[in-house]
Amino acid sequence: MSALPSTSARARAPRSGELNRLTAGELTRAIATGETTCEAVVRDCLERIETRENEIHAWAALDPELALRQARTLDRAGPPPPDRPLHGLPIGVKDIIDTADLPTEMGSPIYCGHRPPTDAACVALVRAAGAIILGKTVTCEFAGMTPGATTNPHNTAHTPGGSSSGSGAAVADFMVPVAFGTQTGGSVLRPASYCGVFGFKPTFGAFNRKGIYPAAESLDTIGLIARSLDDIELVSAVLELRAPAQPQPPARAPRIGLCHTPLWSCAQAETVAAIEDAATKLAKAGAQIRTVTLPDEFSGLRDAARETINNYERAAAMAHEWSLHRELISERLHKRIALGRAMAHAEYVAAMRLGESCRARLPDVFQHVDVLLAPCVNGEAPRGLNETGDPGFQAIWTILHVPTLTLPTHRGRNGLPVGIQLVAHRHADRQLFACARWIWHRLGTPEMIGYRG
Amino acid sequence: MSALPSTSARARAPRSGELNRLTAGELTRAIATGETTCEAVVRDCLERIETRENEIHAWAALDPELALRQARTLDRAGPPPPDRPLHGLPIGVKDIIDTADLPTEMGSPIYCGHRPPTDAACVALVRAAGAIILGKTVTCEFAGMTPGATTNPHNTAHTPGGSSSGSGAAVADFMVPVAFGTQTGGSVLRPASYCGVFGFKPTFGAFNRKGIYPAAESLDTIGLIARSLDDIELVSAVLELRAPAQPQPPARAPRIGLCHTPLWSCAQAETVAAIEDAATKLAKAGAQIRTVTLPDEFSGLRDAARETINNYERAAAMAHEWSLHRELISERLHKRIALGRAMAHAEYVAAMRLGESCRARLPDVFQHVDVLLAPCVNGEAPRGLNETGDPGFQAIWTILHVPTLTLPTHRGRNGLPVGIQLVAHRHADRQLFACARWIWHRLGTPEMIGYRG
Repeated sequence: MSALPSTSARARAPRSGELNRLTAGELTRAIATGETTCEAVVRDCLERIETRENEIHAWAALDPELALRQARTLDRAGPPPPDRPLHGLPIGVKDIIDTADLPTEMGSPIYCGHRPPTDAACVALVRAAGAIILGKTVTCEFAGMTPGATTNPHNTAHTPGGSSSGSGAAVADFMVPVAFGTQTGGSVLRPASYCGVFGFKPTFGAFNRKGIYPAAESLDTIGLIARSLDDIELVSAVLELRAPAQPQPPARAPRIGLCHTPLWSCAQAETVAAIEDAATKLAKAGAQIRTVTLPDEFSGLRDAARETINNYERAAAMAHEWSLHRELISERLHKRIALGRAMAHAEYVAAMRLGESCRARLPDVFQHVDVLLAPCVNGEAPRGLNETGDPGFQAIWTILHVPTLTLPTHRGRNGLPVGIQLVAHRHADRQLFACARWIWHRLGTPEMIGYRG
Repeated sequence: MSALPSTSARARAPRSGELNRLTAGELTRAIATGETTCEAVVRDCLERIETRENEIHAWAALDPELALRQARTLDRAGPPPPDRPLHGLPIGVKDIIDTADLPTEMGSPIYCGHRPPTDAACVALVRAAGAIILGKTVTCEFAGMTPGATTNPHNTAHTPGGSSSGSGAAVADFMVPVAFGTQTGGSVLRPASYCGVFGFKPTFGAFNRKGIYPAAESLDTIGLIARSLDDIELVSAVLELRAPAQPQPPARAPRIGLCHTPLWSCAQAETVAAIEDAATKLAKAGAQIRTVTLPDEFSGLRDAARETINNYERAAAMAHEWSLHRELISERLHKRIALGRAMAHAEYVAAMRLGESCRARLPDVFQHVDVLLAPCVNGEAPRGLNETGDPGFQAIWTILHVPTLTLPTHRGRNGLPVGIQLVAHRHADRQLFACARWIWHRLGTPEMIGYRG
């Protein structure tokens, strides 16, 4: 099998004024060869932000001078050494992730102006690899369900999804090539799908969580949002302390399990159409497709994750804020914490046991397939900015601790993006990338990535 | 079966000047009935510290006036309401756990004078229940293997164990009735065993970890050190958002699995004697004892936890300090981080998979028993303050995510404590308490608890 083409939008010489449109791979190569500079890349990102931020509201904190200083320091250091694979890459950081040089406000007035003393592990790792922290992206309040002001770049009357709202919108709007998100229910893949970009949640624990504000620690997973699969692989390697490898195509056409999940009745017409279209095209392209039905037990996972574990662990984690700043917690979050505090402990334990029991059955689920093809979202991003959409289709995989990836393959009746979701077995993150690359090559087009209006 | 007597040292009217010797249960009852005050309790703890701290070095931060202010505030508030079950209980907090009103220095010069903006979840929960944060207890550097200055109260030439060194020593020396520790390998049960007190590590995740400095996040578990089982049950309830219940004896004599573990060859004479004596006495007392042999696969757990997961996750978590303060990291920790950074990613994944695979086999291990009786430590606390002892016997259970408890039942040839370890199935923490109560009643005596010299 011949090597597959790059997943990046297009190969071309970088043009000043449009460097913000490059992928991480393109811009780090252009910087390494001297075709452009870190400073020029940052300038174009900042310019895009200046033009569009009034409408998109993706950023919680931005310090253009600080970003430019980081860029100039890198430029002065000369050609990047091999241990700096992200040399010059601007990254957006969700505002529940600690940064030593920018505020970290958690989307809450309680943390207004809060300055952590250190970088989170994920921030320190990409920084050491040469990345430039461009700014902090808007998060729902404490990575929950109460949104900030961010809009969907494809239609600003629609939600960008949450809780990594700013990360999804900023990447889709070409303000920054890559951004960190976190997913406790569906907070990385949902905004990625709604905004028409790639979203990746690794195997639980794969990206170290030191320095993130926890929502529910048995579910919280750091993830990535980007405009190319290559970029996700590149940054993943850095976060996993690996040397980046040349992305490889799979050895053979993937064996794909079509998995409607117990929530299939929530799928709107555009999601049904996306999944059916994807399955048809992939079968035609030579993939083996078989239907995978999750065991009955799995139908309890959504509520176990969303209603039980999430509320209980949230209530425990926020004990300090509950004691001292209760009046500054939104009504929606207040209600969840109160439910968590009043919960019978046995109910929490039963939910945890269900998660463990279903995870123990995953080898059966993946016995005959390399990857699952599953719905990612109910449908297009809903209209309105007060809700961030339903996390159900993402949440069942979060509690299973499996790696998931959304690809921006389809559009709905309003012309808004609808992603598909790919799911692999625990620790099979790189197999997921390889399959995703094969699948994207058969289903995707560069025009589907981000907001190109 | 009749109710068992309390595990507390002795029932008696509280005497001023000795209130520091009361258990949590005794002192909260005495405060609630007006026999004493929160301030008097704190004064006696502080006086004990003043007398002994020069030799024991258990405290990393202590602010007597702040502790007394907390006590007086509680005393002024009148009789404790039912939602304050810890009203007046002084608690020591390991110095990797955030406190808003005391420094949190991680046992490292990097965090000299560091003041977190908020309390960790566990601190906020006990504070809201009426506990008084007495001070911060000495930790090994970042909860690793490089000790602070703490000594063993039973013999100050011997290590108190680590990394919760100050918590173990302070509780054993009657400076404070209860203290928080954390266990990544064996950092709660080992110091508890070496110092002759009770140590408890709950099911992984049972006590919320928000606000602790992570060592290895797939292993880190908050635990408790105390001088009575009742106290551990009481504080556990608060941390699990449960109302404390009257401790119950088990419905029948427990079925005990005698489990030597694959590390039995590390057991020194005093540990062998302790386990054999315990098994003999418990069988005579009516417990069903059967030998439980762990599957062969489990023999890899120690190295998976200690050499692989610990080093790799440590390296990722400490990325910030590695970038900016490498010269302030001890040589021992530096070496571990370097090993973690150089590790093949596949090695880490294999270790994680081994842990998952062994956890999936736990139902077989506990099929016929309520609790395992296992060695807790190689033997008595070793002489010298530069090492904190071998965490092997504790670490295999940490990676299995099961609840464990050490009871101060035996002494070695030097007269130093040697605890036994009890282990229950995941989420069976309360069953563990019930079995431990039955077992303690058959094996323990008040004189074995803490340093009574």
